[in-house]
Amino acid sequence: MLLDCGEGTQMQLINYKIRYQRINHIFITHLHGDHYFGLIGLLSTMHLHGRKNDIELYGPIGLDEIITLQLKYSETFLAYKINFHPVDTENITQILDAKHFVVETIPLSHRIKCCGYLFKEKPKKRRLIKEALPEDLSLLNLVALKDGKDLLDEYGEILIENEKVTLPPKKNRTYAYCTDTAYLEAIIPQITDIDLLYHESTFLSDMKARAIETYHSTCAEAATIAKKANVKKLVIGHFSSRYKDLSPLLEEARTVFPNTSLAIEGELFEIPEE
Amino acid sequence: MLLDCGEGTQMQLINYKIRYQRINHIFITHLHGDHYFGLIGLLSTMHLHGRKNDIELYGPIGLDEIITLQLKYSETFLAYKINFHPVDTENITQILDAKHFVVETIPLSHRIKCCGYLFKEKPKKRRLIKEALPEDLSLLNLVALKDGKDLLDEYGEILIENEKVTLPPKKNRTYAYCTDTAYLEAIIPQITDIDLLYHESTFLSDMKARAIETYHSTCAEAATIAKKANVKKLVIGHFSSRYKDLSPLLEEARTVFPNTSLAIEGELFEIPEE
Repeated sequence: MLLDCGEGTQMQLINYKIRYQRINHIFITHLHGDHYFGLIGLLSTMHLHGRKNDIELYGPIGLDEIITLQLKYSETFLAYKINFHPVDTENITQILDAKHFVVETIPLSHRIKCCGYLFKEKPKKRRLIKEALPEDLSLLNLVALKDGKDLLDEYGEILIENEKVTLPPKKNRTYAYCTDTAYLEAIIPQITDIDLLYHESTFLSDMKARAIETYHSTCAEAATIAKKANVKKLVIGHFSSRYKDLSPLLEEARTVFPNTSLAIEGELFEIPEE
Repeated sequence: MLLDCGEGTQMQLINYKIRYQRINHIFITHLHGDHYFGLIGLLSTMHLHGRKNDIELYGPIGLDEIITLQLKYSETFLAYKINFHPVDTENITQILDAKHFVVETIPLSHRIKCCGYLFKEKPKKRRLIKEALPEDLSLLNLVALKDGKDLLDEYGEILIENEKVTLPPKKNRTYAYCTDTAYLEAIIPQITDIDLLYHESTFLSDMKARAIETYHSTCAEAATIAKKANVKKLVIGHFSSRYKDLSPLLEEARTVFPNTSLAIEGELFEIPEE
């Protein structure tokens, strides 16, 4: 999955040795250039390098029209299919129900139609403790245990108590990607208690007037959202190019929400499963 | 002036410390992505960084529609004007008559509408040899000398012979940018005797079948055009990404046309004025 695709994304994917042909879902938040000008190039490169698998593309209406026009004038007929899913940027909508996760839009407040995306893993099954299990259990019984059921004998008495032979499921992790947006408390209920929040923080607080004017957030505001939503970790990014040194941005956010990191080019953030 | 604008051009302009706001003319050869996907990003950045001066944009029809659509969906109203000049890619056409130079299209043979561009400096004036001149000459007389005229006395006799007090003009330099194209001898008359030819050379000769199929040239073909057109110098570029080592490409071209260089990222080629 790829979230937004600014100019040069394909070069950076190659630089960081990320196999771009494995991307099957692309989510675009809004149609400002720094969020999608690299998309047509990536899609073209996928085609030139032999892609056959469909791409599921999510984004505001208009994105399909732009891509179609560019393909038309280059007389390119893609060897794979782009399934475009226009998103409702005004209302929370589940846009993808995959085997292991779902994705919802997060309505944001920006100068043009814009939404973030919330990724939620589906609840996982309990984990069997192999050493604690009798050897002769049927597959059906194993499935029942994974589903949290006790095993009963023919009289309905508990034969094997679930909690004695299974561990709780690994947790279903959650990630929200919120950019670009003004400070918006309306998103808090939707992202409460999530594991990881990426939130834009274009400015320091001394530029708050400019942030309001341009529908962006300050670092303190991003951190306030993280705090009020009780998220586990915050990553801030989308810094104005005026900031050559990013440490004051991190500092400002950490004053409000200590578990904050900077979204540095190439940085990897893992969400632990337990 | 900027010739073509692939993805990442704005980043490279910044990397090479080229002041992109000084670009006033942009020439696009054709609407394949590697030649224009960086244009909308560059135009947006010019706007964001306060550009007020017009941009003259030359390229095949459709380019204006693509840019207009992208600006529409980002709700961007540029603070400067883009004057779009659709080019005739089928016929040699003078598209720009500036103070010191003219620009013509060079019809090329590619899978879609495509043209190169020929830049010709206008003839320059003769240069005065200050030490050889009397001190009391009028401005009119100086202009006449620069225009190559002798100065006559009231009886029509030569007073000052032009060639004794002036040097020949600096030469009017010429540069042709020819990409993308199959081997095309039709361009030779238009580029005969020019100072510098940039010609695409996507493949080595062992890939000639592929070159024909994709309307590209081999290095030997680019060099043959240079030789037959009697140009002073050839620069080859647009190499297939299959070539990690470019020296065989240079070698192949030099076998046919020795004064050849590789168009390496960031390389500067100066055309001497004398």
